[in-house]
Amino acid sequence: MAGFVCSRVPGAFRRGSGRTCLHWRPPIQARLHISILAEGKSKFPWLEEGFREYEKRLSPYAQLHQLWVRDTPSLVRRTRQQRTAERVLALDASRGKSCTSEEFARLVFDELERGGSRITFVIGGATGLPEQVLSEAHHVLSLSSLTFTHQMVRLILIEQVYRAIEIRRHSPYHK
Amino acid sequence: MAGFVCSRVPGAFRRGSGRTCLHWRPPIQARLHISILAEGKSKFPWLEEGFREYEKRLSPYAQLHQLWVRDTPSLVRRTRQQRTAERVLALDASRGKSCTSEEFARLVFDELERGGSRITFVIGGATGLPEQVLSEAHHVLSLSSLTFTHQMVRLILIEQVYRAIEIRRHSPYHK
Repeated sequence: MAGFVCSRVPGAFRRGSGRTCLHWRPPIQARLHISILAEGKSKFPWLEEGFREYEKRLSPYAQLHQLWVRDTPSLVRRTRQQRTAERVLALDASRGKSCTSEEFARLVFDELERGGSRITFVIGGATGLPEQVLSEAHHVLSLSSLTFTHQMVRLILIEQVYRAIEIRRHSPYHK
Repeated sequence: MAGFVCSRVPGAFRRGSGRTCLHWRPPIQARLHISILAEGKSKFPWLEEGFREYEKRLSPYAQLHQLWVRDTPSLVRRTRQQRTAERVLALDASRGKSCTSEEFARLVFDELERGGSRITFVIGGATGLPEQVLSEAHHVLSLSSLTFTHQMVRLILIEQVYRAIEIRRHSPYHK
């Protein structure tokens, strides 16, 4: 970016010099709010530890909200509630659209822009997502055509959200 | 299965009765040997713990062999070596064939039958798998069109192998 003062090569890129510094990363300006709405609680401590690892990595850019509900009717109610203020992305292996990590990053940031930096991902329970959630979501995505446990979906999802931010920052993480 | 003596309802299904017991599960008869050949070491203790959890669950049916190599030339050499005695399945997000968990289970058991109950999965490093491995593998599979860390691929893979066995056993795990 022309005019960016590079911290690694100070003085090399002065304002108005017209040169582009390769160390420049586009900043994640707004504080992002990412909610993960899921049914049931996690049973595995190692999965929680992995989740916390990515939550920590995300913390400079985004605040993570874990919304747990007890059953499917509560999931439908809470999705409707989230939809009034945020963009809602539902995850469904068989009915969702599959995408690459770059496409996922683009979609997430487009939706964050539309939703005032707020987005909610909805993960179903063992029986998948109910019809009402699928039809009310702004997008239905598939992380894979394989079936995962819904706890594993949470871990895969948060790693992809972190990857999306690193893709946006042009960091080498996603290479 | 007709003639199967059901342990839950003893006496109900006698040999030659022609009735089918719903509790019958096809046995995993041979001891399976599943190798995971990967580059680099795992950095996250929680990932190792998750891996061990599935290794333990697999232990009544399969023995897991973790083969670590230091670099890409060693990966190519070791793949060639494994190929002489076992069926080799390479994992590549962009060039592999995607499948459902049921298709994955069918493929794994077909290959275990062909390979004398021995199968090797090859996972690449940060730069993916080299051309030689992709061309020498018996199958190239894609777990997802998303990019995962290769450590996360190990965890997803072992959960799918466990799921494949549970699908084969008609257990309710995969529902």
